[in-house]
This record gives sequence, C-alpha cells and structure tokens, in this order.
Amino acid sequence: MSVLKGIAASQGIAIAKACKLVEPDLSFDKKTITDTAMEVERFRAALSIAKEEVVAIHKKSKTDQDGIKAAIFEAHLLILTDPELILPIEEKIKTEKVNVEQALQETVDMHISMFKQMDNDYMKERAADIHDVVKRVLIHLLGTQAVNLSLVSEEVIIVAEDLTPSDTAQLNHTFIKGFTTNMGGRTSHSAIMARSMEIPAVVGTKTATEEIENGDLIIVDGIKGEVHINPTPETLTYYENEQIRLENRRLELTKFIQESTISADGHQVKLTSNIETPNDLESVINNGAEGIGLFRTEFLYMGRSQLPSEEEQFESYKAVLEAMNGKPVVVRTIDIGGDKELPYLEMPMELNPFLGFRAIRLCLERKDIFRTQLRALLRASTYGNLKIMFPMIATLDEFREVTKILQEEKQKLIDDGVAVRDHIELGIMIEIPSAALMADQFAKEVDFFSIGSNDLIQYTMAADRMNERVSYLYQPYSPAILRLVKMVINAAHHEGKWVGMCGEMAGDETAIPLLLGLSLDEFSMSSSSILKARSQILRLSKKDMGKLVEKAVQMGTTKEVVELVNEATSGK
Amino acid sequence: MSVLKGIAASQGIAIAKACKLVEPDLSFDKKTITDTAMEVERFRAALSIAKEEVVAIHKKSKTDQDGIKAAIFEAHLLILTDPELILPIEEKIKTEKVNVEQALQETVDMHISMFKQMDNDYMKERAADIHDVVKRVLIHLLGTQAVNLSLVSEEVIIVAEDLTPSDTAQLNHTFIKGFTTNMGGRTSHSAIMARSMEIPAVVGTKTATEEIENGDLIIVDGIKGEVHINPTPETLTYYENEQIRLENRRLELTKFIQESTISADGHQVKLTSNIETPNDLESVINNGAEGIGLFRTEFLYMGRSQLPSEEEQFESYKAVLEAMNGKPVVVRTIDIGGDKELPYLEMPMELNPFLGFRAIRLCLERKDIFRTQLRALLRASTYGNLKIMFPMIATLDEFREVTKILQEEKQKLIDDGVAVRDHIELGIMIEIPSAALMADQFAKEVDFFSIGSNDLIQYTMAADRMNERVSYLYQPYSPAILRLVKMVINAAHHEGKWVGMCGEMAGDETAIPLLLGLSLDEFSMSSSSILKARSQILRLSKKDMGKLVEKAVQMGTTKEVVELVNEATSGK
Repeated sequence: MSVLKGIAASQGIAIAKACKLVEPDLSFDKKTITDTAMEVERFRAALSIAKEEVVAIHKKSKTDQDGIKAAIFEAHLLILTDPELILPIEEKIKTEKVNVEQALQETVDMHISMFKQMDNDYMKERAADIHDVVKRVLIHLLGTQAVNLSLVSEEVIIVAEDLTPSDTAQLNHTFIKGFTTNMGGRTSHSAIMARSMEIPAVVGTKTATEEIENGDLIIVDGIKGEVHINPTPETLTYYENEQIRLENRRLELTKFIQESTISADGHQVKLTSNIETPNDLESVINNGAEGIGLFRTEFLYMGRSQLPSEEEQFESYKAVLEAMNGKPVVVRTIDIGGDKELPYLEMPMELNPFLGFRAIRLCLERKDIFRTQLRALLRASTYGNLKIMFPMIATLDEFREVTKILQEEKQKLIDDGVAVRDHIELGIMIEIPSAALMADQFAKEVDFFSIGSNDLIQYTMAADRMNERVSYLYQPYSPAILRLVKMVINAAHHEGKWVGMCGEMAGDETAIPLLLGLSLDEFSMSSSSILKARSQILRLSKKDMGKLVEKAVQMGTTKEVVELVNEATSGK
Repeated sequence: MSVLKGIAASQGIAIAKACKLVEPDLSFDKKTITDTAMEVERFRAALSIAKEEVVAIHKKSKTDQDGIKAAIFEAHLLILTDPELILPIEEKIKTEKVNVEQALQETVDMHISMFKQMDNDYMKERAADIHDVVKRVLIHLLGTQAVNLSLVSEEVIIVAEDLTPSDTAQLNHTFIKGFTTNMGGRTSHSAIMARSMEIPAVVGTKTATEEIENGDLIIVDGIKGEVHINPTPETLTYYENEQIRLENRRLELTKFIQESTISADGHQVKLTSNIETPNDLESVINNGAEGIGLFRTEFLYMGRSQLPSEEEQFESYKAVLEAMNGKPVVVRTIDIGGDKELPYLEMPMELNPFLGFRAIRLCLERKDIFRTQLRALLRASTYGNLKIMFPMIATLDEFREVTKILQEEKQKLIDDGVAVRDHIELGIMIEIPSAALMADQFAKEVDFFSIGSNDLIQYTMAADRMNERVSYLYQPYSPAILRLVKMVINAAHHEGKWVGMCGEMAGDETAIPLLLGLSLDEFSMSSSSILKARSQILRLSKKDMGKLVEKAVQMGTTKEVVELVNEATSGK
C-alpha cells in the first residue's frame, strides 16, 4: 500500500476500484499539403462538428440551470469561434502548406505558452480551456475515439492527469464515486465541479496516474487530502468505519432540522443558507435553514451572451421567495468584476481586479444594469420576505446613492400601478475595512449588515485569498479580524440593527464560538453545514463565549486565539 | 489663442517657443527576399548597433545613479535580446521570404496587440517599451535619422505625440523648459521623467501636436494641467507674474530652512524627507529636512541583472548616513513584488500583485536576499543615526520573525568582530489595515511606526490607487482613514513610541492640520514640499487642530471633512 498527499478539493470518503482515464492517441505527423483549400475545408468541418457538440452540452447545462458548467462551455464556444485563433491557422495552412493538425498545434502552442508564462490561476485555466477545445477538434480530425466516461458501468474512482471541463461534465453520478488528479488546485475547474457534484476529490497529487494502476483498490479521503492505494485491511476497515461514522453523523444531525438554534444558556440565533441559484433550494429546505442569508445573483448573468431581462430576473427572485414561504431571503445585488468577468460586458482587464471596478462600483456606473435588477427585485418583493443587500460598499456616499436609485425605481413602479412591498429591509455587505471602521455611521442609515468575511479578511490582511504564496495570511481568527467584527456588531446593536455573516467563517467550527460570543445575530453558510453548526451552538454557552472572545481580541496572534478556543471548547 | 486641457504631470510653469518632435520617416515596402541568410544578417547587424546604443545609455544612467532611467534601458536590453521576439522574426524571414522590416513589424504588431488588449497600465507601458526598441532598430535598418533632441540649442517646450524613454533621456535641461504630449498619464514614463527632472509637463492633451505649430509661443501650466497656445498679452502677463510669484514663494520659504517646526502654540514636530537614492540628498539638505523619514532601497535592486552585493549596499547606506551627519535616517528594507518587479528574480505573475507576494512576505521566503540587506545595514549603522523599518507587516508573527533574523545577523557580525551600533531603533510600516487595528499590540514590541498612507488608503478602501476607474475611492481625508491613523498614534503614544507618516498624505495641505491635531510626530514627504509644510505648521494651533480632528472623525463623509478643514484653516 502507499499513500499520496494532495489537495482536499471536495469533502467525503470514497472507496472503489481505480479507473484510469487514458488519453486518446492524438499523435500525427507533419505533412506537406498541395491542395490547401481542401485542407482548410477539413479544418472548418472539424471545427463545425466540435461546435455542434459544445452547443449541445452548453444547452443541456443551461437546461440543468448549471451556471458554472454553462459558463465553461460558453468559454469553449468563444474559443471555437475566435478569429484570432482560427485565421492564423488557416493562414499557416495556406502559406506554409502544412496539414491542419500541424498548423493547429503550432498556433495553439504559441498561444498557450504565452498564457502559461503568466503564472496566475486565471491564465492557467484559460490555457486549460484551449487545451480542451483543441483536443476535441483533433479527435475529429484524426477520427480517434475519446474515452467515453458516460459508458462507465461499475463503481469506480476516476484517476487522471487532469480532468477537463468536458470530462467532468460527462461523469455519471451513479458509478463515479470520486476522483483524484495529478494537477489542479482548490480553484481549478475539476475541484469546483467535484464540490458542486458533492463527490469526494483529491487534486494536485502530482503522481496519481503513475502510482495507481487500473483496478487498484483506492480510497479518496477528501477531508485530509489523501489517496490510499491498495490499502492494508486495517486501513480499509478504518475508512469503511469512517464512511459509516460520517453517514451516521449526517443522519444523527437530521434530528435538528426542525429545531430553532438556541445556545445552552438560551440565546437564540438564526442559521441561514448561502445560495448560488434556485437549484440550491432543495438543500436549503432539507438542512433546516431558517432563511437565506445570501442569495448571490451572479448566476443570472453568467454563461450567456447578453444581460438577463428584468422579466427573467423577476421569475428567479419570485421562485426563491415563494419557495421560502415567508422566511427571510437576503438577495445581494450583482457582484461582477473582480475575478468574475462577463465577456459580453467587455470589461477591461485590471492589474488588481480584487481592488478594482466590481460590484456596486460597476453598478453605479452601469446604472442601466443596476436599475433593471432593482426593478425585478421590487416587483418580486410582494411574493415573500425580501431583503436587499449591496456588495462592496466603501463609503456612505455610495450607500446613499444606491438607496436614491432604489427609491426612484420604486416610485416609478408605484406610479405604473405595480405592487411593491411597503417596507423592504436594505443592508450592506461589510467586506471593505472602511465600511467596518465606519459601521457606527452606516448603522444609522441601513437596516442590517452582513459581514462578508472572505473579502473582509483579504482586504484587512492585504492578501489575495486565491494566491497560494500569501494564503498563510488568510487568518479568520486573527485578533485584527475579531476586533473589526466586534466593532461592526456593537455599532449595529447600538442602533438596534441586526448583523449577519455570510462568508466561510460563519460556518467554521472554530469561529462559531467566537462569533456567538460577539453576539452575531445570523450565521449564513452552505446548507450542508447548517445542521452541524446548529448542534454545536446548542452545546455552547453564549455567556461563556462572550468572556472567551473578550480574551481573544486582546491576544497578539492567531495561534493564541485558536489555542484559547480549542481549550475552551474541547469535548463540547 | 487657445487652451488645451491635459494631466498635470510635473509642477511648475514653463513659457517658451514650441518645438515639435517630428517622427522620423520609418515607412517601408514589403519585399520578397531571395537571399534570406543575408537578410537575417542585416537584421542581426541592426540589432547589434541598437544594442550598443542602449548599453551606452544604460551605462551612463547608472553612472548618474539614475535608477529609473537605468531600469527602463535594462528593459530595452531585455527586449533586444529576447529570443521569443527575435527567433520568430528570423523564422519569418526564412519561411516567408520577406524583408526584415516587414518581418519585424508583423511579429511586433502581434505582440503589441496582445499586450494592448490587456487594458492595464503595466502592459501598456511594456508596449511602449517595445515600440521604442522597434523604432530604434528600424532607424538603423532604413538608415534614417532620428530627431536629435540633444542638438536643440534654444529655449523650447517640446511638443510630441508621446515621449519615449529614449527621447526624454536625451532632453537637455539647459534648453528644454517643459513638455506636453498627446498621450500618457500620471504614471507614464514621460510623467515620471518630468518629475525627476523637475521640469513642468502636461501630458494626455490628446491634440497638442495637431493644435500647436513649430515656433508657437506656448505656456505649460503643470499645476492646473493646461497648455496655452499663443496666449493673449493678458494671459502671458498673468503667467509671467505667476512664474515670478512661484519663484518668490520659493525664495521666501527658504528663510525656514534652518528653523525647527513648531506650531503657533508651541508644539514641535519633525519634517523629514522621502528619498529614492543617495542622489536625492542635495535636495534633502537644501530644503531643510530634519532627517530622512523614508529611504527606499529598491533602487539598489533595479535596473540591473543580478542582486546587489552586501558591499555595494553597505556603501550606499553609509554614504547617506554620513551625509545626514547624525540626523535620523529611516531605511526601509526592500519592498519589491507588487508593481515593482525584478526580472532576475523570475517572480511569477500574480492576479492581484498589490495583494500578493511582496516586501516582507518575499523577504521571509528569500531570506538570503533579506539577510544580505540586514548585514549591510548593520555594518553601516556605526556611521550615523540609523533606524530600520519593515514594510507590509500584517501580523505580530512576521515582526517577531524579522527581528529574530536581524538579531542572528547582528550576533554573527559581532562574533566576527565587526562594529555594530548597540541600539538601532526598529519600526514597521503601518500600511495594512490589520497592523493598524493591532497597533496597541505592536506598540509593545516596536520602537516606532511609520504610516504608509498610500497603501493604507488603498487597502482600507479596497481600491487600487493606480486604477483610474476606482480612483474616486482614494480618499485620504475619509473619516475611516482618520480613525485608523488616530488609533495608531494613540496606541503608540500609550507605549511611549513615536509615529511618522511617509505617504503622500504627510505633505498634503489639507491633511497636515488633521495630522497635527492627531499628534503625529514626524511628517515625511518629498523634499520639495518641506518648506511649504513648515510654513503651514508654524501658523497652525495644535490645540485647535486637535479639536478640529475630533469633529472630523465623527463625520460621515470625506466631503464633510474637507469642508470642515477648509473652513477652519481658510486665511491661514
């Protein structure tokens, strides 16, 4: 037996036989072509078939309302129709009289080598997209057959160099129990896909395809980031028990579905869900969420070629509000820009997108986009308990401007005789340090705050949370962060307003005692974390955690805080 | 007469005749070449001459210790020897049998169009560098003659589409009174050069070359960002008087050179200089600085092909310490990474360099670089009043680690019998919000703080200060920033430590009353701002400003703060 270490990309434990994804043979020779016109035709035919395939997958993913998958194949379509890629290839065939395979490879290699030199995740992913498209075109040119993942008919764990978006799109839930790859990180396509499919995955193992043979029994431990190859009977038994334990734990937690979230000493808080699309509603209900603390609306804008209409948005908001049946639904207006680009908006590339023209900054310039979204929200407001939240607010001026725009749209609708709920709570994300520092001033004008811990930590520590080289500075339990959170909660409560948190931190086992101690009112997290968080809070004393956090904010380092929490909560 | 609006790139007023920089005729025809080997030789010969020229200019700029200019020509040398640019050109000559001019143009156009699509300043500047190099090579290929700026022999203002680094490098101080260009922004090469040469400049006028004729009398107003063409006698008189007024003002301020900086009610502060290289020392002395509050050390690492030796660094630090003759010199350890790259370190490109692997983060990984700098500093410490400051500190752990390394190097030197000053003050830059929030904890362990307002504002507002689309969020007078600064100063004073500020804000007329009110101990700024700042502080009451800033931190918006300051200080 041996053990590979990798990056835990998707939680859970999978035990099954290995199925190595063998790459199709795409080798070819360079040839001299006399009839170049014919060769160009051959290229166009292969492109055309590839395009049809991608259009079909893209369409299916839109029907499935799978925004991420749709966005990927949208990107593939753009590549397949990009004149900057296609024209040089045709030109090469004509001037250099080479076969299309050769022309394609040379041109694409140049493009990719330029991208790869730019050593950042975005560019690497673009290179992966291009590779995926080229592979698809070459398969048609060479008449070879790709491994058809959808034909797998027994329980397996997929082992691959890397999984392209097309590969993962074909994975069949019934038989594919997990996967492990040599390449990739937590933000690679394959990792995102695994999490959205809820199958365990370990990526970035470097050598999985070398060390694992077809048919080996393997264990993918998506919690620790380990892959066990042909485990000893003891290891196997351990993991089988672990699988049972995890499943029992899951079942055990279901008893909390209908319960309120009340600490051991009687303090009640609210546990709500972060959702990406209306598709996530089932999980919200199944996990006993007390509302939706963050309904991201980017999905409406992604994986498409133009802005969504007011009607389309209205239908989505209405669906979620109705499904939540009177429970609160906090909708965040769009946060595009930054790392989330929309090709059809033609946004200029920025040197530091996380410090750039995104979210409310973009909305205040592209008021057309913003007004359309606000109108859709206002119209939907009568179908449930809607609250509207604005992202990336840095100054009071910005908040005052967005409320003014909202009031204008509300008045227009009322003038047109459209029903709009009388009072809709308006809040802001606290994710920029300046907003946290000015929370006392904001608290006089907003109805609520929602602390976006991911960005707040990133900006407070000046460390890109996607950048591995500075990831050690992403410290949710840092006393600096706790001080800011405390400042925000105290300022809000002073004005009688409530505070939620909708970043990763809100569902984190070590952070929950601290946040409870700071009197956070609402914890918004992935639905799958809710029951675990509820069972934890039921065991904690709010009063004790209050004392604990007072000590924590006076500590010097994150390590001291973590030790303090561990000591105080061990055994609970 | 007419007036052009542009970007004020370098302060002052210039009045002189226009000298239009006419571009050399670089047109050529596409030709078919039979002897391609010969053509490749022709290319190599032109490259070789161009290289010799650039090496010569580069060498001169190093002798002049002009780090910025040297870095530019270092970049040009890299382009001239870049196989990724050269090999495709030679390949094109051989396979497509075209003349070298054509091959060069096509290849470079492709490169540049890729860069230009990346709509950020860094990439645009890279494109400008490539343009400059190509122009140089084409001039030799075509045997044309570039305008020789060094031959200008009467007082003129240069009018150009854009000034390439080579152009500005040739500008002759004696005759060139100023310049104005169609292109460029505040961070373009030409703007940086103008400021370092202290000649007035207005860039980004869009139409200067169209609207101005050779010999027109023009006025470059580098304060308002205006260019007056053939001004009326009234305008001319106005500007002549303005020139006299500015000069008188400058002379008048010289009476403060020897004075201490004491407010009207007797509170003393220190005014110090920010310097880039030892070349700036003359201006430090001439402007009556009470020390150096920020000695940036990046110049030692830039415009070269390898790391500077310990000896080389030692000599620079020693020179500055000796020149300052016992006055304090705060040396900041290197802040590379971010927007300041060193080609020879092969740092990977990052998605958000301002939130990335820079300054102390890099030093803690590349301890070899860091230890060399610390040793050079320790050895220089006996030659003056050295204080060492660490940039981009986010956590106490980082500060503890750097002091540990410093102690190790100190001990090694002592063990080797090298003289090291017994106590050297150690401080940190406060430029990351987490450090400001934790100032009370840091204050127990550091000797001083220096607030880096440029970065602190950028991170606190989550707005890239180089990105024009979010520049409205760069708000030094924001109550959020003032609150952070107050927090830092109070925390330091509570532990008996001193606080300086070394960002743009420290020399800003509107900020100075607020900072004085907050009890800032040291204001570090460009030397040329010191006398003006001193004359301002002499007129202000520290006690009144203290009351003023207490009001300011309770305000909601930047606009309110500015109005408050203007009202309180008008007429002073």
